[in-house]
Amino acid sequence: MVAEIRAEQLTIALIRQLKEGDRKGFLKLFLDLRPYDQAVQFMDIPKKHHQLLLEWLDLPTITEMLPYLEPDEQMEFIRSLGPDKAIPVLDMMQNDDLAAMLTDLSPEEIDRLTGLMLKEEAENVRKILDYPVETAGRIMTNRFVWVHENYTVGQAVEKLKNYSDYAEYLNYTYVINSDKQLIGVLSYRQLLLTDAETPVRDIMSRRVISADAQTDQEDVAKQFARYDFVAIPVTDGDNVLVGIITVDDVIDVIVQEADEDIEMLMATGKQIDFRTKPVTAAMRRLPWLILLLFIGLVSGSIISGFEDTLNQVVALTFFMPLIAGMTGNTGTQSLSLVVRGLATEDLDLKTAIGVVFRELFVGIIIGIICGGLISVIAFIWQGSFILGIVVGASLVITLIIGTLAGTIIPLVLSRFKFDPAVASGPLITTVNDILSLLIYFGIATMFLNQLT
Amino acid sequence: MVAEIRAEQLTIALIRQLKEGDRKGFLKLFLDLRPYDQAVQFMDIPKKHHQLLLEWLDLPTITEMLPYLEPDEQMEFIRSLGPDKAIPVLDMMQNDDLAAMLTDLSPEEIDRLTGLMLKEEAENVRKILDYPVETAGRIMTNRFVWVHENYTVGQAVEKLKNYSDYAEYLNYTYVINSDKQLIGVLSYRQLLLTDAETPVRDIMSRRVISADAQTDQEDVAKQFARYDFVAIPVTDGDNVLVGIITVDDVIDVIVQEADEDIEMLMATGKQIDFRTKPVTAAMRRLPWLILLLFIGLVSGSIISGFEDTLNQVVALTFFMPLIAGMTGNTGTQSLSLVVRGLATEDLDLKTAIGVVFRELFVGIIIGIICGGLISVIAFIWQGSFILGIVVGASLVITLIIGTLAGTIIPLVLSRFKFDPAVASGPLITTVNDILSLLIYFGIATMFLNQLT
Repeated sequence: MVAEIRAEQLTIALIRQLKEGDRKGFLKLFLDLRPYDQAVQFMDIPKKHHQLLLEWLDLPTITEMLPYLEPDEQMEFIRSLGPDKAIPVLDMMQNDDLAAMLTDLSPEEIDRLTGLMLKEEAENVRKILDYPVETAGRIMTNRFVWVHENYTVGQAVEKLKNYSDYAEYLNYTYVINSDKQLIGVLSYRQLLLTDAETPVRDIMSRRVISADAQTDQEDVAKQFARYDFVAIPVTDGDNVLVGIITVDDVIDVIVQEADEDIEMLMATGKQIDFRTKPVTAAMRRLPWLILLLFIGLVSGSIISGFEDTLNQVVALTFFMPLIAGMTGNTGTQSLSLVVRGLATEDLDLKTAIGVVFRELFVGIIIGIICGGLISVIAFIWQGSFILGIVVGASLVITLIIGTLAGTIIPLVLSRFKFDPAVASGPLITTVNDILSLLIYFGIATMFLNQLT
Repeated sequence: MVAEIRAEQLTIALIRQLKEGDRKGFLKLFLDLRPYDQAVQFMDIPKKHHQLLLEWLDLPTITEMLPYLEPDEQMEFIRSLGPDKAIPVLDMMQNDDLAAMLTDLSPEEIDRLTGLMLKEEAENVRKILDYPVETAGRIMTNRFVWVHENYTVGQAVEKLKNYSDYAEYLNYTYVINSDKQLIGVLSYRQLLLTDAETPVRDIMSRRVISADAQTDQEDVAKQFARYDFVAIPVTDGDNVLVGIITVDDVIDVIVQEADEDIEMLMATGKQIDFRTKPVTAAMRRLPWLILLLFIGLVSGSIISGFEDTLNQVVALTFFMPLIAGMTGNTGTQSLSLVVRGLATEDLDLKTAIGVVFRELFVGIIIGIICGGLISVIAFIWQGSFILGIVVGASLVITLIIGTLAGTIIPLVLSRFKFDPAVASGPLITTVNDILSLLIYFGIATMFLNQLT
């Protein structure tokens, strides 16, 4: 690792330079950082210095740093720039970053801001905002280089040189016909190795994989993971090339989708990170907790319905948390297998049925082993053979049902185009709680004469 | 999307061609697929046709397809190739893919296989296998192009052309000195725009971010996500350039790490996907379940310790699952926030303390709201003011403690270099079950005279 000053020492040095008005020294340190690190420093420098800092920075630096600020701080940042600087920054931004930043604004505010921008840039960002969120159209950029099929290799190389800023990332360029339809792909390597006079049409590959602009971003991410792409072209309904998606945006998508899976599985509530304020975090978590509280009352009323049984055999209470807990555990295991499986594999009916039968067998195996174990323990602990049978038999049945519930519910949701992770872990746990209590007390009541 | 035959129809066509011995037709269809899709087709074609299929394919195609097979099937595939084909395939494979494939073999088998390979290739893969699993050294490739600082731009371009196979992915090449130390980075763009006679030393950037070979792969992934890299150079202790990591491998790391987080959070057990057989899946899930079963017995014995209290106020039982469940829910919420936070951010002591205090406030807020709610409900339902107070007060305290447990346990684990997700969701739930039962029955016993 190349020697580097630690981030905190750097912050202290930068603040000192801002206080002393040492513009040259400040820029020497700050411009040597990558945009991500610049954004981290900016957020760590007290707000009172921001005005001076922004005066010192040039517009391209500001533009590159902006997308790495926290989402909530980006619009505030634009406002504090003032219109003279803000408008050129908006014009210079990558359209996908700009669209992401504008997403949460009201339509009026979007109109006001884009109204100030260059007409062409404004139109581009409005087009992106027209696609549904979390689709390919929303994360694509239109800053890319295409070549016409009538170009020669020499003309293509010339165009790439002129637009080399746009092409920093890529080793491919896309070929279109006169209707702007995507018809081929060309690697830089091919360009490097071919005579300048050859028409690109003769050397391009026609086997080009593209994504429709309406495709879910998670499916785009799957394609990148499978085919090891660095970029993928995006087309609209008529195969017209409208943009490209680059791998850096896909990495963000993969992290975001994994976070969403975990948020839903654990019922965490949306978008809480280490910087979220306590009241905000509590308010985002409360809806799930209150819902689960009311569902939990159902368990309570089931138990109260079996009050007579409980009054006669208090020992039944001892195994209640264990049976409910184990059923919840196996259900969430199945649930998370299905949710993550769906994140990396496609689901056809054959696979779905196969998974359900697999989990049925799994439920039977773990049910028999855990149920057998607990019936022996219950018998030894409480000295009642019948109690051992009741507890063991209940656990066998609840584990099988819990496993199936954790499998079938997310599969059905996915089949009907819902996010399978909606069946969050705590929700499955709570459903399984209710089922397991009904089964347990049902069986116990059947054997009540033998138990007392 | 370019028109394509559906995967299942394609499988049927390929099998027919294999049966009919139609080599030409088969290759026309099969070679048009990308390696991932070739591997999917290979796995879907019945085993009895594999021998013929492998005779028809050339070695480069076989080599490219191999890494996309399921991990368990790769070694079987190598064996079925026979030594004449297997050895050149091993020599041609990317060293990181080969290392990944060999990981689970015994040292003797690795020695036997690498002993058959070209000496240089064998040495390279042994070097990779010497690094600990899940480090940068383990996922790097040594198929990359470096240039010496004494090269001119013209010489550098010539070398890139000669090794263009290695460089398909990248838009950067790395500059080393005579001690093989990494001293700079050079973009293809710079090469394109500079005179052939210029020494690369004059135009390279010396600000090169690299990863030490011992770095955890998760930290490497964080760097890619932050800096939007397509590749990163890997150095050993003396800053000697030993390999590069490309973004396609990092995508696999990010997916794998997210899966691991979920596996641990949900206590799923390792490596179960849609194809895992029932008995295998059950055996991988059982250890956690049996552990949780025994911990669940602790809850049971706590309840049995409060048998007298329960006998006098059966209504206490009704709220037992609710209190235990809510405490588990808030604990797993906190846990997953911390685990995912650690996956994308670095943890310093200041952040850790901040998060603990934030979660303390969150616990107090949700405790007071949920506790207040349930005490009103309990009062109305059971008509006992004191019962309402007992249930409500218990929930306030258990929610605060549950939230803190879900926060502090993974933070402490992470501080001592354990994977924070070891504190799996069900484990936190079970710990919180025990704490909540102790608090609930403790408070209830204190108020026992007023309750009866």
